[in-house]
Amino acid sequence: MNRIESNNPKVDRYEVLVEPFHVDFNQRIFVGTLCNHMLNAAGLHSENRGWGITELMKERHTWVLSRLSVEFERMPVTGETIILSTWVQSSMRLFTHRCFALHDTQGNAIGYAHSVWAMINVDTRKPADLLTFRDGELLKYAVSEEEEPCPIADFQRMRFREPQLVRQQPTYYSDVDINRHINSIKYIEHIANLLTNEQHTRGIRRLDIAYKTESYQGDVLDMLTEQESDNSTLVEVRKPNGEVAVQVRITLQNS
Amino acid sequence: MNRIESNNPKVDRYEVLVEPFHVDFNQRIFVGTLCNHMLNAAGLHSENRGWGITELMKERHTWVLSRLSVEFERMPVTGETIILSTWVQSSMRLFTHRCFALHDTQGNAIGYAHSVWAMINVDTRKPADLLTFRDGELLKYAVSEEEEPCPIADFQRMRFREPQLVRQQPTYYSDVDINRHINSIKYIEHIANLLTNEQHTRGIRRLDIAYKTESYQGDVLDMLTEQESDNSTLVEVRKPNGEVAVQVRITLQNS
Repeated sequence: MNRIESNNPKVDRYEVLVEPFHVDFNQRIFVGTLCNHMLNAAGLHSENRGWGITELMKERHTWVLSRLSVEFERMPVTGETIILSTWVQSSMRLFTHRCFALHDTQGNAIGYAHSVWAMINVDTRKPADLLTFRDGELLKYAVSEEEEPCPIADFQRMRFREPQLVRQQPTYYSDVDINRHINSIKYIEHIANLLTNEQHTRGIRRLDIAYKTESYQGDVLDMLTEQESDNSTLVEVRKPNGEVAVQVRITLQNS
Repeated sequence: MNRIESNNPKVDRYEVLVEPFHVDFNQRIFVGTLCNHMLNAAGLHSENRGWGITELMKERHTWVLSRLSVEFERMPVTGETIILSTWVQSSMRLFTHRCFALHDTQGNAIGYAHSVWAMINVDTRKPADLLTFRDGELLKYAVSEEEEPCPIADFQRMRFREPQLVRQQPTYYSDVDINRHINSIKYIEHIANLLTNEQHTRGIRRLDIAYKTESYQGDVLDMLTEQESDNSTLVEVRKPNGEVAVQVRITLQNS
């Protein structure tokens, strides 16, 4: 991932080459890998402005991803170069909104993403007030919809009626981050593994992900699914104590 | 991964930034991710010379990784930039030997790797004769040990006496490549998951991997281990039919 020139100083742009080991049997990038590129770009964008997690940790704070919605016209394929842009859309007291745009090298839009983040104090686990933290400096990074459009539909609430347990997913060393929490990307990988190959061939159009509570290395996660409509499936990931860790809506491409 | 200048036209050099989601709870890069970077560099090095798998496929051939040995003084950590070099060391009739060197940005060696590859005809699955394929052109890429040293000890044969079954590892969509074979990197990830957190904190010094036969999406793999010495463990991965897919020796850093 290389940072490239951007015509807006508040927007970072990165060039990403889709690697051979990062694509599925259809030669399309794994959705988890694509989300990884986005979160990585988010981290670099923050870091470039003094708001990265290393800097924040000096003040005993960190970013926590609360929601992520991604929607793609198509999945980039092996060998393709894609341009990933990211910026802060707005900040409120408890949450900041960050957008992502994905383009091909000709400038055609491939997809967009929208994410919601809280900042917490790592000692108290309490949320920070983003309007006053560092004197509200975060607000100056906001980019208006007119300046940089992010045409992706809002996150829609998920209503689980009778989700069925379809897999018990153990978690190991490779699933966790420095806090031994299951990392945001690994959930996406395990959830994508619930789809059939036929569904993957049709392709994922959109993911809406709500990160509810942390789970830990060694947790055997209950994976429950429920068909929401012809082309959307709801997934709930529950911890051994029954708490919901993550909820996801997977929307497939029109067949 | 960016290609950077190399003082030897037969050697490619790449700059790699260690990303936040690619490190373990010790902030060290996952060994599978590091091996992925190496195989990716190998693919680019081949492609840059007209020997990549896309080019070879036009002649109905492809590369198959047979053995990989990697040895590291230490594991690169999050945020660190590393320099990865790769070149062809020699080619014989059935196998070509490829080396990798890993340096920090000050030029200090972090580790080396050695790999053995066969080329097969994708229709007959028979090995090609590398000394005559394309009139032996592959030989001209060989770099002598004097030009470019690759100081890593030879792959040592593994002798399994009474390996014990320690895990049955299901395989899914995210484990497979375009041929729905379990990909070389995913084996490494599953194998690293067999170590305890204490062993990961001590750190992996070396991996020797022999890829024996392909396994497929959906195979539940038997993971067997055997303690070879104080700091080395042997792992055998067997397919449901009992065939050996992969054998690995994991050597830990001295404690």
